[in-house]
Formats: sequence, C-alpha cells, structure tokens
Amino acid sequence: MSKLVNSIKEAVQKVGLKDGMTISFHHHMRNGDFVLNMVLEAIAELGYKDLTVNASSVFDVHEPIIGHVKNGVVTGIECNYMGGKVGKAICEGLMEKPVIFRTHGGRPSDMEKGTSHIDVAFIAAPTADDMGNCTGKYGKSACGSMGYAFADAMNADKVVVITDNLVPHPLVDFSISEIYVDYVVEVDQIGNPAGIVSGTTKITRDPVGLKMADYAAKVIEASGLLKDGFSFQTGAGGATLATAKYVQDIMLAKGIKGSYGMGGITKYMVEMLNNGCFQALLDVQCFDLDAVQSIRENPKHMEVTATHYAGVSGKSAAVDNLDVVLLGATQVDLDFGVNVHTDSNGYIMGGSGGHSDTAAGAKLTMIIAPLIRARLPLVVEKCLCTSTPGSTVDVVVTQRGIAVNTKYGKNQELKEALKKAKLPVVEIEDLKRMAEEIAGTPKPVQLTDKVVAHVMYRDGTLLDTIKAVK
Amino acid sequence: MSKLVNSIKEAVQKVGLKDGMTISFHHHMRNGDFVLNMVLEAIAELGYKDLTVNASSVFDVHEPIIGHVKNGVVTGIECNYMGGKVGKAICEGLMEKPVIFRTHGGRPSDMEKGTSHIDVAFIAAPTADDMGNCTGKYGKSACGSMGYAFADAMNADKVVVITDNLVPHPLVDFSISEIYVDYVVEVDQIGNPAGIVSGTTKITRDPVGLKMADYAAKVIEASGLLKDGFSFQTGAGGATLATAKYVQDIMLAKGIKGSYGMGGITKYMVEMLNNGCFQALLDVQCFDLDAVQSIRENPKHMEVTATHYAGVSGKSAAVDNLDVVLLGATQVDLDFGVNVHTDSNGYIMGGSGGHSDTAAGAKLTMIIAPLIRARLPLVVEKCLCTSTPGSTVDVVVTQRGIAVNTKYGKNQELKEALKKAKLPVVEIEDLKRMAEEIAGTPKPVQLTDKVVAHVMYRDGTLLDTIKAVK
Repeated sequence: MSKLVNSIKEAVQKVGLKDGMTISFHHHMRNGDFVLNMVLEAIAELGYKDLTVNASSVFDVHEPIIGHVKNGVVTGIECNYMGGKVGKAICEGLMEKPVIFRTHGGRPSDMEKGTSHIDVAFIAAPTADDMGNCTGKYGKSACGSMGYAFADAMNADKVVVITDNLVPHPLVDFSISEIYVDYVVEVDQIGNPAGIVSGTTKITRDPVGLKMADYAAKVIEASGLLKDGFSFQTGAGGATLATAKYVQDIMLAKGIKGSYGMGGITKYMVEMLNNGCFQALLDVQCFDLDAVQSIRENPKHMEVTATHYAGVSGKSAAVDNLDVVLLGATQVDLDFGVNVHTDSNGYIMGGSGGHSDTAAGAKLTMIIAPLIRARLPLVVEKCLCTSTPGSTVDVVVTQRGIAVNTKYGKNQELKEALKKAKLPVVEIEDLKRMAEEIAGTPKPVQLTDKVVAHVMYRDGTLLDTIKAVK
Repeated sequence: MSKLVNSIKEAVQKVGLKDGMTISFHHHMRNGDFVLNMVLEAIAELGYKDLTVNASSVFDVHEPIIGHVKNGVVTGIECNYMGGKVGKAICEGLMEKPVIFRTHGGRPSDMEKGTSHIDVAFIAAPTADDMGNCTGKYGKSACGSMGYAFADAMNADKVVVITDNLVPHPLVDFSISEIYVDYVVEVDQIGNPAGIVSGTTKITRDPVGLKMADYAAKVIEASGLLKDGFSFQTGAGGATLATAKYVQDIMLAKGIKGSYGMGGITKYMVEMLNNGCFQALLDVQCFDLDAVQSIRENPKHMEVTATHYAGVSGKSAAVDNLDVVLLGATQVDLDFGVNVHTDSNGYIMGGSGGHSDTAAGAKLTMIIAPLIRARLPLVVEKCLCTSTPGSTVDVVVTQRGIAVNTKYGKNQELKEALKKAKLPVVEIEDLKRMAEEIAGTPKPVQLTDKVVAHVMYRDGTLLDTIKAVK
C-alpha cells in the first residue's frame, strides 16, 4: 500500500476538488514557501474556480495569489497574517469577499468546533514517507516545528502531503501521522529554507531599540513574575530580542530557573534553554535555522500543535499559563487596544498571529514599540484596526515612557512597582501627546465604506473590520 | 492555572459523573494496574450506579469489578480482552447486559466514529504535570507506550489523569497533551510495573514449542516476504518469541534490512531493532520492562496511537502495510476461523486485542499453536467463538503439520512454496484428524441460550456472540 501519486495535479484530481471548496496551507516555510504557489498554479491550470484559500499566513512570496484572484480561481482568503504585498492589493479592493483574519489559536479551534471547514489541506512536509507520516525536523527544507499544520491534517476532509524528501516507510520520529493523510506527492523543492528567517531575527543595535529593551526587561523584573517557574514568550524583532537577552542576563545573574519559553522560536530562546533559563521550549514554529537544529536535537525543545499553543477548543492551552509576553504594535490607542493588522496608513501588512491569544493568556502582556514610526505616532485616539482588545494589554513600553493600563480595574500594584523601580511611568495620553509634539498630529486616513477584511477574535466572534483605503 | 484536585473522589465529582454513564480505562499497566480498581472503589463509595466500564483490557487484577457488578455500580463492561477470572464470572451469567468485545483497532475507531461514547476517561499516567500533559515513558511506574489511551483522551467528554509522578509543568517529552485533560489527581501508586510483564514473555524451551517456531520461521522464509523492507508483528508467548528469534537469525545471516516491527513490544523485538533488523518499532504497548527502557531511550522505538496501529477510522493504519503477523489461538476451525476469546470449554479468557486487526491487514497471517492443549484438539469443526474470520487467516502452524488456507481463492502459490521448502504441509482437516486420533473427539460444550458477550469486528459489525456455559 502506498499513497504516492505522481503530481500535485493528480493529487488534486484524486481528492475530488470541486469549484467553491476551501483549501488550506500552513506557513512554516514562511517567506520561503513554494507550496501554496505550486498548488494554486496546478489548480488554475486544471480550470478550477471560486476556491477559498485558508492559509495560516500569507507572505510576500505568495504574491501570485493576486493573479489567481483576478482570474476567479481564488475568491476567498482566510489567514492569521498577511504580508504587505497581498495586503496592499486587498486594501485597494482586490476581492469581493472580505478576507477573514483569525488568530493562531482561533484558526485550529474554529476547525475543531466545525465553524471553519477545510475540504482539502495541502501540507508542505520537509520529510515524509509514502504513507504520509511527516515531519519538519529533517530534510533539505527542514523548517522544524509543524505546529500549525496539525489542525489542518486532523480536520480537513482530504489531506495531501507535499514533500521534497521522501524516505522509506515508516518515517522515524514523525510529527503528523499517516492516519490523517490521503495522498503524498514528491516535488523537487517545497521551499527555500533561507526564507524561514523572514523579518528581523537579530538583536537591534539601534540605541532607541536598546533603550526600549532595557525598559522592558526592567518592567519584567519589577513585575515580580521573574522568579523560578517563569514562563515567557517573545517573537522576533530587534528590540524584542534585545529584551530577551536582558531578561536572560537577569535570570542567569540571579539563578532563576524558568519553566518554559514559547512562541515563534529564535536562537535567543534556544540559548536561554541551553543556559538553563527554561526547562522546556514549546515551539509552534521556528523563526530561524538555529531553532530548527535545536528542535531536531534537543528533546526539551518540543513541537506543540497550534491548539496546544493557543487554542480555545481544548481543555487548556500553553498561553493560559504564560507569565509574560512581549508583543509589537503598529498602533496603540487610548483604550490600550492594539493594531498589528494595518500600518498607520490603513494598509494591511500583518495580522494577529498569536498576538491576541497570548495577550489574553499572559499575566503580563507588554507592548514594545517606538513612540514614532515612519514619522507617525504609535499612540492614537483609536486604532485603525483593533487586533488585540485593550482589556488584555497591561503595559506599553516606548523609549520615552512606559504606560501601565489601569483602565480596566487592574494593574494598580504593577504601576506602583514600576514607579518604585524608578521607571519612567507615564499615562497613555502622555505618550500620544509626546509623539504628536515631535511628529505632529497625523492626518486622518481616508477609508471607503467597503469592508475588505473581518478580524475574528480567538473565540470566533467578530472583533473588527478593515475597510478599503481611498 | 492548575488542574490538580485532591482525590479521585473530587475528580469524579468535578467531572459531573452521573448514573448510567460510560467511563473508560486503558491497560498499559496490564496485570499491575491499580487505577481501574481505585476509581471503581471511589465511585462505589460515592454511591453511583449503573455505570458502563469501557476498559481496553480487563485483567485478573481487576477481579474486584465482579463485586461492583453484583452491587449494581457497574452494569456494562466493554473491552478488547478479558482475563480468565472476570471471564469465568461473565460466562456463569454474572451480568444482565452482554459484554461488548472490540478490537484494539475497532475500539478507538468506534470512539472516533461516535458509535462508542465515553463520558469520562481515567488515564493512568506514569508521569504527568498539573495541566495534564502526561507520558508513560518516565516515573517509577513507567509503562512505556500509552498508545491505547490517546483515543480515550481525545474523544471522552471529560478526562482525568491519575499519576504517581507529578512533575513541574510543562512536562518535557509528553505523549498526551493537556488540551485533552480536565483534571489531574496525584496518588501514591498507579500500579505495580512488575505486572506489566504478564503472560509468557520468554522464549520457550519446550521441544514442541521450538518445533512450531522452527516451522513458523521457515514458512516466513519460504513465503518470499522476508526481504528488505520486511515488516513483522509478533506478540508474547514462548513459541512466538522463539519464532522471532529464528527470524532474526535468518535476517542477520542474510543481511536483510526490515522496515518495522510492531505490536505489544518485547525485548526480543527491541533486540531486532538494535541489531538493525528493523528501521523502527511502532509500539502501541510495551510487554516488558526492556521495551519500556527502549521506548524511552531510542527514538527509533516510537509510540503510536491505537488508531495509527490498527484503526479503521483513519486514512490508513500501520497494520495495512504489515507483511507478516504471528498470532495465537485456542481454537481454529475448518474454515480457518480463529477463537481467542474462550477456552475450549467455552469460558472467556482472552479477546481479540489486535488479533483480527493484524490478520485483516497482514499479507501473511500465521496462527501458531500446539495441536493439542489441555487434552483438547486445536482444530475443531466450528469454533466456540469466531474472533478472527477465516478469510483473513493464511497459515496454521502446529508441531505436527502446517495447513495453508486455500479456501478463499488465495494462497495456492504459498502452499506450493512451502511444499517446495519441504515443510510438512497438510490440510486443516488432517490437523483435526491427527489431534482427535491422539486426544479423542471432544464432548460438545454445553451452552445455554443466554448471550453473555457480543464480539464486534474492527469495522463495528457484530462478528459473533458468546453464550453462558451450562
């Protein structure tokens, strides 16, 4: 018995794809992914129309999807993150149907609850056997964790594994089991692993970033959470990574043994694991090749599914026990609501990812961002898009001051602690004023009435909408 | 956040157990399990009635369940295997409701298909954290694989993990994720690991057994399946293990590199893995402590879920690619049907386990059994219970001859190959006659009309019934 077929086209035909269906993809190859484009090209050549693409993230490398939308092959896009190239086209009114944005926890949970149905999932697998057992840990295109792909595999009606490293059955140390897989396709290359490292994954050298990082680390220290059992998530981004470095320094100096690090994993988190700052890393995706190597070699560096990471459909998720999360923002408003979907001009260039999931779970949710970016103030009256509700945000750290969110009847003690630690505590309104003193009051962004995206919260409710830019 | 509660009773109350519900257990602690008895005792003390117990296996250690049946606490039993102590009571008419027997593949698949609903699953976990991440690989009561427990965890409405080795969250190298777990209970001892080694797990020294093993190994060799890529399942039992040893000798002598070994794993299969006879072991349960050590230390020794092992609800299962399986029997009939549920006197003392699952999947299904046991012939006109349909059985090996099943339009080539290899090929009727010449024709077993058990095939259909003994 073998599930191997000769081509993506053959797999598409064998799974019985029909016009109007929803197909899904995961994004562990990040901006190096070839699979989404290859599949859409095959589908377009076969003449299918009116498909919805549910991709855990859409990167700039997926720009060809714009052509498939124009040709009617794709009429719906659902994702947790969308890069600026496709995002701009969406905001210029590319599609009839609004894009559906979910979170990294909401996406698998919507599948598990049945509110998001996938007809056919396409799994980019760096290593697989001909029965469909597969993993991201090995192979020339190794991406490490395949955490986001589990929900697709487990819930889609049909599942196609696409690999560029076919090994004899049974694959040892598989992540996704053959029980979920219908067909396997071997291709030359599923992606360019160099593209896994997309965005900034190096510590900043910019003095502004280092200042923010210094403040952020001191906030964490002053919060009282930095003690044995400490759990921490940080993503990529220069200032964020610098904060991780400072936090590590404090932990090592004080001999603090944390419990787990989480998130998109970078070499800085791997270093913290190896230095004993954590007993484990919970990895839903690798952000660089050091992380890929670590998850392959270190049993304490564990792959977790997106549901385990951040879902709401399970009995619990790792985010529920998170002490501190460090997150970015393009805008923060006076209610502490955060925008990570659009830039300050209203164009989509991001998405929640795990932003609102971790914010909801963590004891201390910190936003770290420069006061002014691209000559526009970080803090605004009201975000162009609320990606993460203000009620789940605790602190906003900028290079000019730290705002503690006491607007929802909490964090008063934290505010006092930060003041006591001589940190520059200000009000969120102060941050807005300071920014405007430097950059001026920005002109209101001109939007049309056309809704181009629905932003769904992790529980499946509508959080906000995004409108086309004029 | 923590899911830890103080006692089994507290967990039972918190999950909202109600009279009439179905509770489930897995059997990796085998005859050393304490958990089923502890939970039933707690439930009895709390005054619950009319519960159905779905245990992947019921061993002699679970004899106290008889008292709970008599007291009305338990009114239904469902399992894949039942030891002789409880089995005898059942066959003497203990229960109103027939026992439901499933297979190791059918049980999880019935849960996944929704035809078997579990209200509360109790998971005996040799190591767990307070959020419910758990594993069988570590701890004083380590049992190795927890393959059968995944379906319970994933499909039950409520899940209680019971452990005697509570470790800080997050447990590294967990098997079952916290996303499935509602409550965690710490107890002194979940079982006696010495009891994991139940039944015969040593190579026989009996000349009859060695003769059978010699024949069986030669059948495998003559079948043409023993070549690179060979996959093999064997359970415990002295002659079976001797066969494995002989097969290993052939593989090593000829330099054959097999693909995988499977089944309840013993030290003999571990030895074959370590000697390079297999690239992997797929382990749904460990049959001895050498296997427990191996699955903990060797990444090529992989835990698989029961669905992955033998289910019918997945897209495939490991049994589908199995070359050869070696199975036991208490009776074989002239249609090659096999009984592993009752002894020749009609008393339940076993069950399918993975018998009919592997028989259905394997290219070559071999029954190995002595011609006469307890003075009764192996081969009978019609089995007292058909556990495995004759259409899925290929060869019956006894010390006096080997019968090849050509009754279903197959195996003619195999029969010729065995003859060519000078093996003592006989007809199944010959085996019956030879046995009766020695042991006489057995008196028919006297059964009543009362059905005490339904034997369900792996696809959920009724295969046979078992009646009370007069």
